Amino acid sequence: MYSEKVMDHFTNPRNVGEIENASGVGTVGNAKCGDIMRIYLDINKDGIIQDVKFKTFGCGAAVATSSMATELVKGKNVQEALQITNKAVMDALDGLPAVKVHCSLLAEEAIHAALWDYATKN
Amino acid sequence: MYSEKVMDHFTNPRNVGEIENASGVGTVGNAKCGDIMRIYLDINKDGIIQDVKFKTFGCGAAVATSSMATELVKGKNVQEALQITNKAVMDALDGLPAVKVHCSLLAEEAIHAALWDYATKN
Ligand code: FES
Repeated sequence: MYSEKVMDHFTNPRNVGEIENASGVGTVGNAKCGDIMRIYLDINKDGIIQDVKFKTFGCGAAVATSSMATELVKGKNVQEALQITNKAVMDALDGLPAVKVHCSLLAEEAIHAALWDYATKN
Repeated sequence: MYSEKVMDHFTNPRNVGEIENASGVGTVGNAKCGDIMRIYLDINKDGIIQDVKFKTFGCGAAVATSSMATELVKGKNVQEALQITNKAVMDALDGLPAVKVHCSLLAEEAIHAALWDYATKN
């Protein structure tokens, strides 16, 4: 049912945690299942995302996509990070069952919310 | 949104894992969200549940209810374990938001499936 990469990022998620005094924080909720996700970005003066952490109450698919998404945005600049789609994250995980696609949207939405938070502060 | 007990059992879940050569194993899926749960029971010759472990791909509410449910069934006999309802587990957790009640059903269903598996083998 789940790819090896999904199971790897689910059982050993990367970048779980919080960042104090983050440059941007994005919190989103999933109306379909009631889950929540928060992403913290640490962006340097050149606009590079040097660190990123996430927390979620979501399921394994939400954990795996957030873990992969944080890996993909790390080291990118703000413009590049905005272009990372949910589809790119799912492709990097070798796909997700159709019923779990809505869970994966949490990561994209939380990153966009955190980038928006950063933009409005700068 | 979530009680302290829910957050405690979510962030520090009890009895996560597998039991080799378990007396009963129950695997159930949640049609509403596509998540899965498996519970392993180790039942001794007197019919007492001496050990119990679970694994889930489900969300934080599924993790917290399973963790609490495994604590409640441990040390009980099969008849007592069958009487532990989803409501009793949620009460022990000081409640869950309405949108997450479907997640909590996974634990009850998986325990019943594991007890059924044990019964058919004995
Ligand atoms: S949303 Fe699937 S178990 Fe909670």
